[in-house]
Amino acid sequence: MDLTEARVAGGGGKSEGPATENVDWYSLALHYSKYYAGKVDIIPKVPITGLRDFSYWYTPGVAAVSLAINKNKDLSFELTGRWNTIAVVGDGSRVLGLGNIGAEAALPVLEGKALIFKYLGGVNAIPLPLSTQNQEVIEQTVCSLEAAFGGINLEDIESPKCFSILDNLRNKMKIPVWHDDQQGTAGVNLAALINALKLTGKKPNDVKIVLFGAGAANLAAARLFITAGFDARKMILVDRKGTLHAEREDLDQLMLKHPLKYEMALKTNAEKVKGGLAEALKGADVLIAASTPGPGVIKKEWIREMEKDPIVFVEANPVPEIWPWELKEVGVKIIATGRSDFPNQVNNSLMFPAVFRGALDSRSKTITDTMVIAAAQELAKFAQEKGLREDYIIPTMEEWEAYPRVAAALAEQAVKEGVARRVATKSQFLDEATEITRNARLAVETAMKTGVIKPLPKV
Amino acid sequence: MDLTEARVAGGGGKSEGPATENVDWYSLALHYSKYYAGKVDIIPKVPITGLRDFSYWYTPGVAAVSLAINKNKDLSFELTGRWNTIAVVGDGSRVLGLGNIGAEAALPVLEGKALIFKYLGGVNAIPLPLSTQNQEVIEQTVCSLEAAFGGINLEDIESPKCFSILDNLRNKMKIPVWHDDQQGTAGVNLAALINALKLTGKKPNDVKIVLFGAGAANLAAARLFITAGFDARKMILVDRKGTLHAEREDLDQLMLKHPLKYEMALKTNAEKVKGGLAEALKGADVLIAASTPGPGVIKKEWIREMEKDPIVFVEANPVPEIWPWELKEVGVKIIATGRSDFPNQVNNSLMFPAVFRGALDSRSKTITDTMVIAAAQELAKFAQEKGLREDYIIPTMEEWEAYPRVAAALAEQAVKEGVARRVATKSQFLDEATEITRNARLAVETAMKTGVIKPLPKV
Repeated sequence: MDLTEARVAGGGGKSEGPATENVDWYSLALHYSKYYAGKVDIIPKVPITGLRDFSYWYTPGVAAVSLAINKNKDLSFELTGRWNTIAVVGDGSRVLGLGNIGAEAALPVLEGKALIFKYLGGVNAIPLPLSTQNQEVIEQTVCSLEAAFGGINLEDIESPKCFSILDNLRNKMKIPVWHDDQQGTAGVNLAALINALKLTGKKPNDVKIVLFGAGAANLAAARLFITAGFDARKMILVDRKGTLHAEREDLDQLMLKHPLKYEMALKTNAEKVKGGLAEALKGADVLIAASTPGPGVIKKEWIREMEKDPIVFVEANPVPEIWPWELKEVGVKIIATGRSDFPNQVNNSLMFPAVFRGALDSRSKTITDTMVIAAAQELAKFAQEKGLREDYIIPTMEEWEAYPRVAAALAEQAVKEGVARRVATKSQFLDEATEITRNARLAVETAMKTGVIKPLPKV
Repeated sequence: MDLTEARVAGGGGKSEGPATENVDWYSLALHYSKYYAGKVDIIPKVPITGLRDFSYWYTPGVAAVSLAINKNKDLSFELTGRWNTIAVVGDGSRVLGLGNIGAEAALPVLEGKALIFKYLGGVNAIPLPLSTQNQEVIEQTVCSLEAAFGGINLEDIESPKCFSILDNLRNKMKIPVWHDDQQGTAGVNLAALINALKLTGKKPNDVKIVLFGAGAANLAAARLFITAGFDARKMILVDRKGTLHAEREDLDQLMLKHPLKYEMALKTNAEKVKGGLAEALKGADVLIAASTPGPGVIKKEWIREMEKDPIVFVEANPVPEIWPWELKEVGVKIIATGRSDFPNQVNNSLMFPAVFRGALDSRSKTITDTMVIAAAQELAKFAQEKGLREDYIIPTMEEWEAYPRVAAALAEQAVKEGVARRVATKSQFLDEATEITRNARLAVETAMKTGVIKPLPKV
């Protein structure tokens, strides 16, 4: 394989900006992926000392387990690994920033996600790229897999298909279905926003929020913010055609093809501000950008038109829409990006492992928006307890203790809403989530020490 | 959960017969299944020392891996875990001897199979019970999963649906699809039969074979035997309605609903022997029974009518159609059963882990019948080298060295037939298969020693 070619095709592996390590992540990824050929393995979680043991792990004994479940299907959450196993399902139609590259090419990304699910959440996640991009077949396939899993994580499915797939599967299935590019991103943004507002003394129902980019992430964020009590009329979504409002020319088309965007066009932007981002930002308190990689996508002079103490999240990867130091120069108070090398990283990984930990521990039948809000509030609270600063509005991925906290808050909310199959107290959920995530990290350490996981090869 | 109830429903967990341990496998299975709640876990197979590592396991680095695969889909077998991952797919329509008990109830069995796949073959197998029994949806679902896997093991799907599902999926997919209840059983029977004939001096194209029971196992066995050079005209299949032959009243119905059985009715039983098993057995050399649990299903006096030095495999579980000692009394020369507590256990587990090991190592696009025959011949040869005896016509599951041998023979045949994506010598395949299966067992031992796998709880 020609590493150089893939590197060039990838658009240059080195991240840019002053605070960045000078590492070629693309070459390393190819090199290591070739060496390990897969990121996760299946291993027995039961002792095996000889073939006699299969008399209870397999026939004849297993028949009793099957019959017990046949009588009460919910026992599949107690007598099998279903309680801790989810599928990470993608169709390869919108993978990272790479677009529609197909199911096989989506697999390494889904494997990476499975790795994070285990390492940060203790969740058994199975990477399942689908060799179809037909919405009906995707839904039917996922529905057919219900008995195998305690939850479904949808990943990298293109918009607007992703919205109706999520809605339909949530209606049809009795296990949680989650689209991380929607709900995960929205949840982390909400947590960061709650704390940014706290620091600046702004009020949720009072702030004017501009969402730049109207893809899965920002549409879901708008929906979640509204449920969380933000004033829809003071929000403005901006897409490639400009601001979204109730008089847009393409409204009829949206109604047919993109119901959520249509709904948001009617609900938001009560003043019917027309034009582009520049016009939308006049007098805005908050900008959340999830559009195209920068720099130079957002101009300093537009930011200058925002209210006092503005809050700006620029989340395009690998390069934010405008550099953080440019935002500082024009007086932005709170800045967040999607990158780990700047302060305040708004990153799904803070949310999805914990969300599924909590949903699985409560044997939840779904993950409602209000459960996501409870999770976001707990994530925000964790940072508050540590002490909010302009450069610390949200925990980092290194703060392990945040995950069980978020998991327990979500599980508690599931119980409150009556969607949990299993009832326990928040502190029970916290203890369990703490143990299982700690054990997951310990198992990796042990496997590395004993050589079951081989050390990294030389580059 | 009421253990007693499940035990009773299971029909009594103790196996019967004189050579048997007095253990209640059903109670143990329920007890242990509740304690471990799942038989397999996902663990990272790559080192993780901190979150920085996700820059190559996940974004941004993974993009280069995805792009490389996007250019050449076969690289998904080199850069991801696809090369060693299969799905174990069932629809719960014919689980063990329990009948149609549904997807959730099938999960513990599929998990047990996954455990064996890893322990004996080093294969990562994902248990996937499907929440549908509709043939079209099953086929579409499995096809949609192609990019995730290096192979598909179908399991416990009812007959006759299982035949056309297997045929259709083999045609549609570019990875091996295997129905263990057909091909696995047929392969092990072939291996045992080859050696039984060797011991009795009978010739494959000369023997008269009676197959009692015309379900997935025996129909597939008949098909495989014919491909392997046995004379179809001298075979007689017997089902609930009696012997299968070209003048059966239900022939039109079979043509429509059960094409394989129809085909066998025309090809086999050239003498058009009518009646039941008693009539079929007159002058037969071999009886292979895969019908209903005994004892008393087959009568001694029928066996007396067989040729000199008869060969009888009685494979119903948990109790064979007739007890082995009864067969001895009427002069049967070679006896095999499906049980581990009698000599000559004819057991799929001797075949499927090795077959997939070989198919995966050769990155095979399919598993042809001739590849199964090569595997069966190698399994037979292994026993020959150890020294055939009347009570040793086939290796036991304890003989680890047999598995890599069978894997290598199958992989070599895949290369010969041009269905392998990867070309290597038989000895390379043997070395690789030996290493990976040994490592799988070592990993279990290590996990038990270090406490990652918890010791068995008290009963």
